[in-house]
Amino acid sequence: MAVHWSGLSPELLLALDRGRGAEPLRSQLENRLREAIRSGRLRAGERLPSSRELARELGTSRGLVQECYGQLQAEGYLSSRVGSATTVAARASTPTLLAGPAGRPRPTGPPGARLLADFRSGVPDLAGFPRGDWMWAQREACRTVPNDALDYGDPRGSPVLREVLAAYLRRVRAAAADPEQMVICTGFAQGLGLALRALVRAGIRRVALEDPGYDDAAQVAAWAGVEVIHVPVDTDGIDVGRLAATRAQVVVLSPAHQWPTGVVLAAARRHALAAWAASADAIIIEDDYDAEFRYDREPVGALQGLAPDRVIALGTVSKSLAPALRLGWLLCPPALVSAIAEEKESGDRGSPVLDQLALARLIESGRFDRHLRRARGTYARRREALVAALAQHAPQVRLTGLAAGFHAVAHLPGAAEEESVVTAARARSVGLYGMSPYRSTGAVRPPQLVLGFGNLTERTIVAGIAAVGDLLQGG
Amino acid sequence: MAVHWSGLSPELLLALDRGRGAEPLRSQLENRLREAIRSGRLRAGERLPSSRELARELGTSRGLVQECYGQLQAEGYLSSRVGSATTVAARASTPTLLAGPAGRPRPTGPPGARLLADFRSGVPDLAGFPRGDWMWAQREACRTVPNDALDYGDPRGSPVLREVLAAYLRRVRAAAADPEQMVICTGFAQGLGLALRALVRAGIRRVALEDPGYDDAAQVAAWAGVEVIHVPVDTDGIDVGRLAATRAQVVVLSPAHQWPTGVVLAAARRHALAAWAASADAIIIEDDYDAEFRYDREPVGALQGLAPDRVIALGTVSKSLAPALRLGWLLCPPALVSAIAEEKESGDRGSPVLDQLALARLIESGRFDRHLRRARGTYARRREALVAALAQHAPQVRLTGLAAGFHAVAHLPGAAEEESVVTAARARSVGLYGMSPYRSTGAVRPPQLVLGFGNLTERTIVAGIAAVGDLLQGG
Repeated sequence: MAVHWSGLSPELLLALDRGRGAEPLRSQLENRLREAIRSGRLRAGERLPSSRELARELGTSRGLVQECYGQLQAEGYLSSRVGSATTVAARASTPTLLAGPAGRPRPTGPPGARLLADFRSGVPDLAGFPRGDWMWAQREACRTVPNDALDYGDPRGSPVLREVLAAYLRRVRAAAADPEQMVICTGFAQGLGLALRALVRAGIRRVALEDPGYDDAAQVAAWAGVEVIHVPVDTDGIDVGRLAATRAQVVVLSPAHQWPTGVVLAAARRHALAAWAASADAIIIEDDYDAEFRYDREPVGALQGLAPDRVIALGTVSKSLAPALRLGWLLCPPALVSAIAEEKESGDRGSPVLDQLALARLIESGRFDRHLRRARGTYARRREALVAALAQHAPQVRLTGLAAGFHAVAHLPGAAEEESVVTAARARSVGLYGMSPYRSTGAVRPPQLVLGFGNLTERTIVAGIAAVGDLLQGG
Repeated sequence: MAVHWSGLSPELLLALDRGRGAEPLRSQLENRLREAIRSGRLRAGERLPSSRELARELGTSRGLVQECYGQLQAEGYLSSRVGSATTVAARASTPTLLAGPAGRPRPTGPPGARLLADFRSGVPDLAGFPRGDWMWAQREACRTVPNDALDYGDPRGSPVLREVLAAYLRRVRAAAADPEQMVICTGFAQGLGLALRALVRAGIRRVALEDPGYDDAAQVAAWAGVEVIHVPVDTDGIDVGRLAATRAQVVVLSPAHQWPTGVVLAAARRHALAAWAASADAIIIEDDYDAEFRYDREPVGALQGLAPDRVIALGTVSKSLAPALRLGWLLCPPALVSAIAEEKESGDRGSPVLDQLALARLIESGRFDRHLRRARGTYARRREALVAALAQHAPQVRLTGLAAGFHAVAHLPGAAEEESVVTAARARSVGLYGMSPYRSTGAVRPPQLVLGFGNLTERTIVAGIAAVGDLLQGG
């Protein structure tokens, strides 16, 4: 007698694999049935063959089919009542409440992977990531980690990494770094989010951001539920007088190398800022994002060192090693460390431990410093290539913001239009990026480009600039 | 002439190191001065020696001291006006706004590390973490990762891991897993937080939690800003009738092995739950936390497979590998994946890539399955040891919830008091934990203990139970 099993095609049954090394028949059958029900090929209320029939059809024992039915019944796929046939259980139908457009998240991978040259900023030299050193450090971490450290740990992060990083930041960034006041996080975005959420809990409602500034900071501020106020940046950094006028209680800034203008916060402004924070009872969130890479003179120490009770300093390895590692830190004022650690704990229970231990080994061993020295050389050469290529192909374009890091601001001639330059360059397979998206108003004047050169070889930089030199000059 | 430098002790000057390989003198001097200012040994307004005097004192060039002063001035530590001496700059004073008690976060390390036996639950066998396999997988990941994948990536996580995990979850958990609808996160807490925040944005305000249940879920719900309603769990799992009466639009539950009671959601309840979700237009958040370890029969498939449009399934490697790895995932209904991925992006920009690739290699290579088989054997032996030890030393105590995982519920005699048993056991160096903290009301009756045995050897389990057998029986 044939199996009356509407909607389940014979090939499903034929798909049972009896070869050597195949999945056990019972689990094959279960999976086929689940798939059939899920895909709608077997619908709610449909009768299944009796276990005897199906066993004969399949050439298996009846017990196997019964076990299989029992399992699927326990899982809610099938129903059976004494004396009745086994049927497909009634299932939940398509959702309506949340049935918005099931759009996929926007791709955030590198756009224009096939471009001749992509001057996207914020990306370090990915080919220069010290794979060998990182493998070594991971191995060391994994080999030596005590069993207890494999459990959930201190939400502030591994005590070992905090100790090593604090010493490093005291040495290299002149920070007032105490391991007890440090929280390890996954990078700038998470660090800023944790800090802002902790401040919101302390009653703060308005945060001032630099303008132009890091566009993601506004996104994070919205996520954390604070109102954003924009404060202009000039050639000496943020305008502290205008900051004071906003009555904001928190400001986020990048004093060592402002993002994206590249200006350095002037000494007088540093003082004014510290004085403002003291008199306004405010907190400064310092983004110390690419201070490792400085060309003209010794790095300016972190602002945090000057006012550790007022400054939350954020740092990451996203620029010094690679964004993919997702490792960063906050140096917190003593009064805030608990609240920030609690946010970290509620949010994700702490960062991965072995990665933290690997970073600690990398720093302790001197391999991190060696990598930074190499990287500094690489970026210095790329920077020179950019300067030389512009001097040759677009001499009217002025470059600023080159004291540190691996991006610069190109000032286009007054008549140029950012958007048309960007569009025309894209038509020549060169990725250029205007300043306007970083301005709170979206203003397109003065026309400027933010040129990233961290992840481009000298050859690519030269070829890219050569291809668009006339556009940059407004030609 | 002596240096008039009040408050700066001579040993600071003497600490300049002129040995081979020492830090350059200039940076030594800068650091010493910064430290002196920061520590308060040099106070605001104090005069510094002239550069000529200090150079003579130190036996260095005057230029070196001038450079050093200039740097510290740029950084805001020092002030100088033409014709006047260099002085320590006025600095921000102690903060007041946020000067709450600077308490440290509560320690979350293993309490009672020196206990004879600690039956804390939720901790897997940490000594069994497959270090060799993980080192191998990390090495493979690091060796083979394309440069582009070292950049910021898709906030949903590595496409490679999502592909491998989806296949794995289809195979092992009978989940309806599509890599496009998966978001990699750091574990249950983050996954729940992301899901709840996304649902809050969709307008949801109330979430139902199992009672007794995972105490951290309430913490995460509070963090995400939703109201919590408790719904009782009986021997068949969550009471769906009472759930429906709450009018909650989301429920968080652990159907395969309820935390902490260990009961399995009955087939009829599965159906009722799916029907409720469909009729109430609700979402089920399924915590699939230890389904890998099942002893009596084949694992019950994930509820998600039954109603993929209504269920967000959360999984992690915290129980199967180690909490310290911080790797987990969400299987999202199509209508929610974008919103959840956006939360992940705003929150931390995605999980570490090399860890994700390492997990993918571990699973693909079959090493993960091999590890699970070993771990299953380990836990089965520990479970038997617990059952046997209780049968011998406290035969009146009934154990339930043993079908899966590595914790069980011990039902104490009616007259026993959880807290006094826990206290008396602690006095004998045995860590026991009552059920009451997991009950929304904190009720201490019926008296029960949640006994974790995952991270205890058989010998320790036996010794621990032998030491407290009389207490468990109310003696």
